[in-house]
Amino acid sequence: MSPDFASKLLENAVSEFAKLPGIGRKTALRLVLHLLRQEPSVADSFGNAIIRLRHDIKYCHVCHNISDTETCALCADTTRDSSTICVVENVREVMAVEATGQFRGLYHVLGGVISPMDGIGPADLEIESLVERVAAGGVKEIILALSATMEGDTTNFYIFRKLAPYDVRISLIARGVSVGDELEYTDEITLGRSILNRTPFSDSFKG
Amino acid sequence: MSPDFASKLLENAVSEFAKLPGIGRKTALRLVLHLLRQEPSVADSFGNAIIRLRHDIKYCHVCHNISDTETCALCADTTRDSSTICVVENVREVMAVEATGQFRGLYHVLGGVISPMDGIGPADLEIESLVERVAAGGVKEIILALSATMEGDTTNFYIFRKLAPYDVRISLIARGVSVGDELEYTDEITLGRSILNRTPFSDSFKG
Repeated sequence: MSPDFASKLLENAVSEFAKLPGIGRKTALRLVLHLLRQEPSVADSFGNAIIRLRHDIKYCHVCHNISDTETCALCADTTRDSSTICVVENVREVMAVEATGQFRGLYHVLGGVISPMDGIGPADLEIESLVERVAAGGVKEIILALSATMEGDTTNFYIFRKLAPYDVRISLIARGVSVGDELEYTDEITLGRSILNRTPFSDSFKG
Repeated sequence: MSPDFASKLLENAVSEFAKLPGIGRKTALRLVLHLLRQEPSVADSFGNAIIRLRHDIKYCHVCHNISDTETCALCADTTRDSSTICVVENVREVMAVEATGQFRGLYHVLGGVISPMDGIGPADLEIESLVERVAAGGVKEIILALSATMEGDTTNFYIFRKLAPYDVRISLIARGVSVGDELEYTDEITLGRSILNRTPFSDSFKG
């Protein structure tokens, strides 16, 4: 595709789209030409939704989840079990866990995992505020639901150490063979773990 | 992914992105969360680029190509050969032909092809204005560069009939085996055409 667009406005819009992850210049051009074919109001509502989102969005002061209000809808929901906190990396994982319908407690969004390679240390994450939530009392269990990577494991261990002084149960989401996976293609570490952490057969009828 | 976002602003931005062709809700969420992680100015320039584009864009009054000005940069370029007009469907094809570097004439953007199935007739396209350009004189050749589909062929034929009264040469871009294609996998119609329209071997050294 020619780098020489007939219009600077077009060039500009395509460049902005192409900055997004996974969007190349060809796709960017396709999307921009699509918007051009729509009514002006479509482009307005698209553009304004992005601008408003970035300016007006808040983060819940309790769990640091994305929110329109000071306290997010999940933390404000008194029907949820406030004695259980599920620790996740990002907003997206809150949605993923919520989508399962299996969890009725609250969340704590760390904002990432400890990763010295990327220059992310414990102080860059919402770990201190998690400790404060536990220290405030009323929390019985912390469920660590981070990625099953080295960085995730490091962060799990760091949090485990930080919470050791408190009377709180710390658990880890189960790791094992994914539902629908063929055993033959499961890596040996996952398979090994799933054998070590085997559950009573009758438990598989739950939920 | 849960349909129940924690934030209406987020929900709104994701929905806007998901309206774009080829962007599902998961991808939309990924893109929106990416924008959320950037500085507010990034979201501003992204949103404004889209809004400005849709409001300020013009279409060249000569060739109907996309433009920032009344007459596009291509039509205004006096070094180009104004006696040759390449007829294309859309803005994108102007860029595609320009990218080849093989054409120094002007363009005429139809805005589509005749397609009764989609309710697009000759009156919906910039065919009349093409006839006027030819009638005004000075045009020696019209190159039809539409898609090699039934709709493209229909449109080619319609234009051919419309321009019949004028002293202008009408040519069609060559159709044949794509460069790099294996003969074995080329469909028989394309292969048949490429045999009928064979060119002298010495021509392959040109350009």
